[in-house]
Amino acid sequence: MSAPPDSAAFLAELRAALSADAVLSSAEELRPYECDGLSVLRELPLCVVLPTDREGVQAVLRICQRYGVALVPRGAGTGLSGGARPIRGAVLLSLARLRDILAIDLENRSARVQPGVRNLAISEAARPLGLYYAPDPSSQIACSIGGNVAENSGGVHCLKYGLTVHNILALEVLTAAGEVLQIGSQAPDSPGYDLLALMTGSEGLLGVVTECTVRLLPVPEHTLVLLAAFTSVAAAAESVSAIIAAGIIPAGLEMMDRLAIEAAEDFVHAGYPRDAAAILLCELDGSTAELKERRLAVEVILQRHGASAIRMAEDAATRLLLWKGRKAAFPAVGRLAPDYYCMDGTIPRQRLAEVLEQIAAWSVEYGLRVANVFHAGDGNLHPLILYDANAEGQLHAAETFGQRILELCVAVGGTVTGEHGVGVEKLDSMCVQFNAAELAQLHRIKAAFDPEGRLNPGKAVPSLHRCAELGAMHVHHGQLPFPELERF
Amino acid sequence: MSAPPDSAAFLAELRAALSADAVLSSAEELRPYECDGLSVLRELPLCVVLPTDREGVQAVLRICQRYGVALVPRGAGTGLSGGARPIRGAVLLSLARLRDILAIDLENRSARVQPGVRNLAISEAARPLGLYYAPDPSSQIACSIGGNVAENSGGVHCLKYGLTVHNILALEVLTAAGEVLQIGSQAPDSPGYDLLALMTGSEGLLGVVTECTVRLLPVPEHTLVLLAAFTSVAAAAESVSAIIAAGIIPAGLEMMDRLAIEAAEDFVHAGYPRDAAAILLCELDGSTAELKERRLAVEVILQRHGASAIRMAEDAATRLLLWKGRKAAFPAVGRLAPDYYCMDGTIPRQRLAEVLEQIAAWSVEYGLRVANVFHAGDGNLHPLILYDANAEGQLHAAETFGQRILELCVAVGGTVTGEHGVGVEKLDSMCVQFNAAELAQLHRIKAAFDPEGRLNPGKAVPSLHRCAELGAMHVHHGQLPFPELERF
Repeated sequence: MSAPPDSAAFLAELRAALSADAVLSSAEELRPYECDGLSVLRELPLCVVLPTDREGVQAVLRICQRYGVALVPRGAGTGLSGGARPIRGAVLLSLARLRDILAIDLENRSARVQPGVRNLAISEAARPLGLYYAPDPSSQIACSIGGNVAENSGGVHCLKYGLTVHNILALEVLTAAGEVLQIGSQAPDSPGYDLLALMTGSEGLLGVVTECTVRLLPVPEHTLVLLAAFTSVAAAAESVSAIIAAGIIPAGLEMMDRLAIEAAEDFVHAGYPRDAAAILLCELDGSTAELKERRLAVEVILQRHGASAIRMAEDAATRLLLWKGRKAAFPAVGRLAPDYYCMDGTIPRQRLAEVLEQIAAWSVEYGLRVANVFHAGDGNLHPLILYDANAEGQLHAAETFGQRILELCVAVGGTVTGEHGVGVEKLDSMCVQFNAAELAQLHRIKAAFDPEGRLNPGKAVPSLHRCAELGAMHVHHGQLPFPELERF
Repeated sequence: MSAPPDSAAFLAELRAALSADAVLSSAEELRPYECDGLSVLRELPLCVVLPTDREGVQAVLRICQRYGVALVPRGAGTGLSGGARPIRGAVLLSLARLRDILAIDLENRSARVQPGVRNLAISEAARPLGLYYAPDPSSQIACSIGGNVAENSGGVHCLKYGLTVHNILALEVLTAAGEVLQIGSQAPDSPGYDLLALMTGSEGLLGVVTECTVRLLPVPEHTLVLLAAFTSVAAAAESVSAIIAAGIIPAGLEMMDRLAIEAAEDFVHAGYPRDAAAILLCELDGSTAELKERRLAVEVILQRHGASAIRMAEDAATRLLLWKGRKAAFPAVGRLAPDYYCMDGTIPRQRLAEVLEQIAAWSVEYGLRVANVFHAGDGNLHPLILYDANAEGQLHAAETFGQRILELCVAVGGTVTGEHGVGVEKLDSMCVQFNAAELAQLHRIKAAFDPEGRLNPGKAVPSLHRCAELGAMHVHHGQLPFPELERF
């Protein structure tokens, strides 16, 4: 992607359409935007634009169309797969200044918000009405709802309450050409193709979200957290399957292995048992009667699977303490080694034990420690591979190890990403996940929204060439099977 | 759509690829297929093909591609909006002979089935494992899972358990060109655009489903049904909003008005109170403790809204009796007049009372009686407009009345179809629901899957021309805004 033929005229048009302070173009101003949460990949954009309303976004899209310039939409920039990483010669379109909560509707239990509103701010605003927004990615203090829609974000509670896609009702989207699409409604189903789900998780490749109506839920009457310790990872993993198989859907069901437990204890002293091979944190919510019954059922299952110690927290303070170690686990593990590589793959729940065992074996083979902290109930793994980028060969080993984990996820019937998205990080893994016909179909959908390929190019869906070069795709006589899609 | 240049050669190829008895082409053989559940619209197809496996479907798709022939995919043909109505000169592709349940997976709580498997057959097969498939359209004895996917079918229990889209995990889909796409997985989220949701409800326009993996749920421990009678429709409607607002999600929450109650009573003697202006049927399921608590909460709400009589059924026989009237309501109403027009629109729940009032006013204005039997909890209305097609002007009056109801649904923030799909019946209403840019986007998605427009042409999404002719779309200087999409 190269800068437009007349960069000065292009920037002048943007400044005229927005306001002078809404277009950043000096190297100094651009620096804070050079990466998202995947900080190993940095790049400076052509400029950053910060419109304050839909009309501003529309103006930017139309000017970019006239000049043939690409755009990278960006929420809070907390994404972990490089989805919002700038592209040289492209505009970085920040939605951060569209940050109004437009309405909270008690009767429909919904909130209409602009894309730059922070995830947690929605729950804070709804709280006086006894409502909240359920999806809670770890970054919820900072991440924006627009970014959540782009990545179909999950979180600890998505086991019971679903991903972003299950918690949004309607979107206002601008196409690459600046056309306005109203998608979805308050109704449970909408006629026409399901563009609401299609847009959610599309990583900014299909359109720019300028408004979002989310579903709000009543704050649960009661909540309790159980902590169970196990002498083996396999026993903890089997408990997870057993709880779900019993028809119990906890609000959250998280697992940590020994290395993660130790790191968390050293860091925040949550009182986790250091001698355990693994712990489970199981949150239950509901009415008093429901909770009493479910808690007993869960305890019986945990004990049957050999849980060596079970602690329970009912009051808010003790609950927060039990969660504190889990929430601090990533930075805590970060203190164990100069660098870590956070993986994100999903597997069918009942394969947890064997997959964790294989990861442990590879850890020995590669000589790299791995801490596991993850959404066990969803089968959403987050192995953290510890390494030292300054030690000869360790970065490469960590990447190879990580790639093998993702391939294993696909092999057992899972996927290469749980909730962090593909971005630029997982492009090669997508060649493992999908065959040529499937990738070609994804590119055709992209073309149906953005025929010039100017929205977040090079992200989320690898080109057929890239997969062919990786050897993951069969190429006939040096020809790609779908020549019409070459430009993607 | 016209027959291929050499019809005999085309049929011979189909017969060679399948078997002689899998290709029907005489008028006599075609007659049973001339309509689906929307029986007022009849047409004979070029031929009916009945492949027995994926390879057979693939062969049909490839032969049709070579001859440039269109196809209409068909499940059990129970759809109510004409989605599976044959098209002259096109092949009717029946999936009825792909009817194997391939696997029931207890650990993953899922079933892998062929598209022709009946909805209820899945639950029957899963029952010995204590599991069932939740979506239950009224036609569940007959309708097929492939058809359910095509229409994103709902049912009485989708209030709590979701529509088809929320209960499928993976699909095997053939494109118009016969390419195989594996979509979705056992994992909660899949990378790439959400093709699973996109395909669900696409009414056979994007691809042909050849395999479907559905989610199974544990059969609830206990179930009970409450019947509440009200002296006004508005009070019943307000109870519905109040129950949901209290954070209670019943397994089903259905409403019937006086005409529907009387018709049902005359027909099946379910014991409904004939003097009530409206009744609610509220089904609750869960564990014993949960039910006890929720039942009390619901009763308090019903009484507070003036419910004049509340009956409860806990045992299976009494429950079935209470449901019997609801399930028989459509045929029961059918006995009141020579013809009825079953509408299907969705509105935000809290607008129920005023929308029902407006329908009652129009009923007087048009001189046509209306019975209301519907999924109140979902805001999914089914007004049944009674008329006599042989009485001068009544068919036209019923259609105009119906169209006004759908426009009202859109005006209050709802949609023109709840669960019956668009098919051919709702094409004009789609011009009300969507603007030109939105319709154009739907057509571009169609083109991304089926560039030649040979899968179920003329269904589900109206052409821009059609909407322009209806005056529902602004046409500049006699030109359609999107000339490249003229052929759709």
